[in-house]
Amino acid sequence: MNLDNKLTLTISCPDRVGLVAAVSQFLAKNNVSILDANHHTDSETQWFFMRHEMLFDPEVISFEDLNKEFTFIAEHFQMKWAITPKKIKNKVVLLASKESHCLTDILHRWHEQELDCEIVAVIANHKEMEKFANWYQLPFHHIDFKTDKSAAFTQLEQVIEQYNTDTIVLARFMQIFPDALCQKFKHQVINIHHSFLPSFVGAKPYHQAYERGVKLIGATCHYVTADLDAGPIIEQEISRISHSDSVQDMVRKGKECEKSALARGLRYHLEHRVMVQGNKTVIFAD
Amino acid sequence: MNLDNKLTLTISCPDRVGLVAAVSQFLAKNNVSILDANHHTDSETQWFFMRHEMLFDPEVISFEDLNKEFTFIAEHFQMKWAITPKKIKNKVVLLASKESHCLTDILHRWHEQELDCEIVAVIANHKEMEKFANWYQLPFHHIDFKTDKSAAFTQLEQVIEQYNTDTIVLARFMQIFPDALCQKFKHQVINIHHSFLPSFVGAKPYHQAYERGVKLIGATCHYVTADLDAGPIIEQEISRISHSDSVQDMVRKGKECEKSALARGLRYHLEHRVMVQGNKTVIFAD
Amino acid sequence: MNLDNKLTLTISCPDRVGLVAAVSQFLAKNNVSILDANHHTDSETQWFFMRHEMLFDPEVISFEDLNKEFTFIAEHFQMKWAITPKKIKNKVVLLASKESHCLTDILHRWHEQELDCEIVAVIANHKEMEKFANWYQLPFHHIDFKTDKSAAFTQLEQVIEQYNTDTIVLARFMQIFPDALCQKFKHQVINIHHSFLPSFVGAKPYHQAYERGVKLIGATCHYVTADLDAGPIIEQEISRISHSDSVQDMVRKGKECEKSALARGLRYHLEHRVMVQGNKTVIFAD
Amino acid sequence: MNLDNKLTLTISCPDRVGLVAAVSQFLAKNNVSILDANHHTDSETQWFFMRHEMLFDPEVISFEDLNKEFTFIAEHFQMKWAITPKKIKNKVVLLASKESHCLTDILHRWHEQELDCEIVAVIANHKEMEKFANWYQLPFHHIDFKTDKSAAFTQLEQVIEQYNTDTIVLARFMQIFPDALCQKFKHQVINIHHSFLPSFVGAKPYHQAYERGVKLIGATCHYVTADLDAGPIIEQEISRISHSDSVQDMVRKGKECEKSALARGLRYHLEHRVMVQGNKTVIFAD
Repeated sequence: MNLDNKLTLTISCPDRVGLVAAVSQFLAKNNVSILDANHHTDSETQWFFMRHEMLFDPEVISFEDLNKEFTFIAEHFQMKWAITPKKIKNKVVLLASKESHCLTDILHRWHEQELDCEIVAVIANHKEMEKFANWYQLPFHHIDFKTDKSAAFTQLEQVIEQYNTDTIVLARFMQIFPDALCQKFKHQVINIHHSFLPSFVGAKPYHQAYERGVKLIGATCHYVTADLDAGPIIEQEISRISHSDSVQDMVRKGKECEKSALARGLRYHLEHRVMVQGNKTVIFAD
Repeated sequence: MNLDNKLTLTISCPDRVGLVAAVSQFLAKNNVSILDANHHTDSETQWFFMRHEMLFDPEVISFEDLNKEFTFIAEHFQMKWAITPKKIKNKVVLLASKESHCLTDILHRWHEQELDCEIVAVIANHKEMEKFANWYQLPFHHIDFKTDKSAAFTQLEQVIEQYNTDTIVLARFMQIFPDALCQKFKHQVINIHHSFLPSFVGAKPYHQAYERGVKLIGATCHYVTADLDAGPIIEQEISRISHSDSVQDMVRKGKECEKSALARGLRYHLEHRVMVQGNKTVIFAD
Repeated sequence: MNLDNKLTLTISCPDRVGLVAAVSQFLAKNNVSILDANHHTDSETQWFFMRHEMLFDPEVISFEDLNKEFTFIAEHFQMKWAITPKKIKNKVVLLASKESHCLTDILHRWHEQELDCEIVAVIANHKEMEKFANWYQLPFHHIDFKTDKSAAFTQLEQVIEQYNTDTIVLARFMQIFPDALCQKFKHQVINIHHSFLPSFVGAKPYHQAYERGVKLIGATCHYVTADLDAGPIIEQEISRISHSDSVQDMVRKGKECEKSALARGLRYHLEHRVMVQGNKTVIFAD
Repeated sequence: MNLDNKLTLTISCPDRVGLVAAVSQFLAKNNVSILDANHHTDSETQWFFMRHEMLFDPEVISFEDLNKEFTFIAEHFQMKWAITPKKIKNKVVLLASKESHCLTDILHRWHEQELDCEIVAVIANHKEMEKFANWYQLPFHHIDFKTDKSAAFTQLEQVIEQYNTDTIVLARFMQIFPDALCQKFKHQVINIHHSFLPSFVGAKPYHQAYERGVKLIGATCHYVTADLDAGPIIEQEISRISHSDSVQDMVRKGKECEKSALARGLRYHLEHRVMVQGNKTVIFAD
């Protein structure tokens, strides 16, 4: 199996009889093998979602022709679709502030080839993060958000664009993204919030959780939108706590949730397993 | 080991050096064996909590004298305390509405001697619940909440008092307790709410969860207070869901959380493992 | 949506390009809507598994013709397959011994229409179980295994056959099924074993777990085969324990695992979500 | 609160009435505050275990005198005991082979001050691990186990002794410790095995799990003894898998279990929360 010929096909469109037949016939005709297939029809909206991992044979049909010919089917069924070759890697920028656990967790998973992407840069408003970028021989950009927040975000935008970034990961980056950036990079900015949303939106969620006396804490990986902590949820994780846990203990236990929810959410995103529908996500998890 | 001589001692008071020494010396002097011991000091308030399971020997000291003599220590340390003999069982009334899964779950656990209490009656605003009370040969009271809600709660109060009830369990009872009853039976009314509070307070939490697109649903067992769904949390449980779960699927998966959170919470309460501190609980779980 | 026209199609066969196309084309041609679809290709054996929930229109094609016509595709691809109408319910017999928690759990889930089947009888070697069958107005058969085990199994077989039983659930039934019965009812007998297999095969698994000092206990729902506790695993569940848990505490905590693993496993089986491959299962969970 | 004056007292001895009283009286008399207290009596052996976190006042009594005076109580009750000052840190050596996820996970937790110890060296039989030791400015020792295993273990022992090591962590170190070393460093060598023991002892546990078709995989943190993978279990963690998970997917998901079980187990050990009883552990978790 030549992985260079591996493709991911994602489709969303109104559900209709004959849809799966048309797609699978097209693939069979062009000798494309289906490695993995997932469908979902939202029963409320009658909207159809599909993800295929598949293998094409360039001697039968070129990638360009495959795309061109699929356009006819796509138009007929009014599809939002994409065919992505596995060999083209997503360019990712990591943003951090003061806490390094999510940053180093992602860096090490990437180093171990668990995350299928190209990390192009690390950006932080705290210089202590530079060390970690250096370890993995990545460019580091320090941006100061204290003096002029607006200028800082302009600088951030420039760095993001300079790398042709596909995905921006807020690995415990504690600055609130302005609306314009949320719009511009819609469904491209992934945040980890340190509570099981919608509980404890905003600042100091572990303190909020401590005050409320909950018995479970959590973390939520979601796309960033203009509404703070209200974007489409990709993944959540929780951990059991007790009365004997101080806020500091909750922070420690919560870090585990943050790391795993972010790592799973990011992996789903990079492997085109996440499809956004309104303010919700369809996740074709593996 | 004669279980008739088993006692539970619970204490809460300001923390002081010598507190544990005074209590354990008193017990040793009277030949009381400690079977299980738990302490907790809240670091914020410097409040001390203790629970002992212990065995006394009536030939050395009577239960009455044990209580009388402990009063001196208790007053010296300004304790809120109780010594409860295991053989005196908590009288419990179960309240239900239309859904029977929590009701029958508790009834069967009680039947299997997993819950150390005397269930004295089942009350419901739906007559379909009578069958389940009959199975376990328990008195059943149907109270109609449709015509006159205030009269219904008066009737409910009378039934509760007629049985000298210690604990009232709202096993998916869908009527909101009036403030006066919440006050009167403070920390005696246990509710199961079908969300991981503080998310999705109030009506139709599974519909709220569906709308928000969360990846985890849950249930919360808590003491009922005048503030809806805001009382001290005793136990919580969660379950993983996905985009393919309809509201009906969430209801089904959530029932598991409701049953186990309520069963654990009620057991903790009956075994004097729950100590309330402000709007939070200390749980000496086993 | 007329649920009487709902069908489940399950397929397993060698994987080939064009397989999905052929099936989906056939369905589209006959105006059958796909409600839910799952595929899986085992990468080791290149074996293909599929499950469709779908809706047919009797005015377009009859159920009989749908079956007849599908036979051509099935033969061409060497499929093992079945099209099952949702309205034809699986006939289930429940077997129990002395412990009632799994038995009553299944009975109540069935009563609440969570399990899509017809429970036709309860069989037990302890008479105390009769009460529970009566509650749900089900026939009860007491079979004595003490005097003559072989005769008892003959009697058991007769009862099973008298009800045209499709599925036999061993709800903590503590007699070991003889090889002949395992063969005869292959992949029709579902057992719940009270350990996370393959740990603690055989008798008294909680005692074995206590001796070994594990920190997690569990339960395993599996098909019964001639090899004790070694059949294909359908579902597993675990619970955290600590040094303070006695064997009795482990039994109590383990019951939760047993109930939920068995309930989920049985539901998967009844909804044709389980496909056996060698000694392993493919589970198209919802 | 001067943390330099924080102590941990651990005790194990036969249970007797008056034991807790004697200890707590001694502490009160010397003005030692109890910050956290845990007891456990094993009901089978009537053995008593205790752990106290406490604060002493050097102006009232010196650390040396506290120890000396406690000896009288300890002898009277035949205690195995220790009073450890928090400021004296455990010296830890990390051993790894080819997989780096556990090694870097521990290193980063230590760097974030989550693990209360002094990591003194990293040893590995693969040179690729040197990089990670360098990042954290730790000495690295490469030992070759291919040519002469016995000589390699002699060299290993020398390195361990050269650092006055208290705790040896096998962070996916794939060489089997010889009996003599197991004896010499009894309850000082912590291993992470990549299965939920006692399932899948020995080599390639994920392959074994794949073959058996389990629905849960796990990891076990335990003390190393001469019996392979049979030492006292400290902590276990599991993860849900499905038929669609290849061995490689299981390896990836299992790494999460390995990291968290090892990190928790090691933390318990370093904070004197683990007490060994026969082949089992009492864990006073926080």
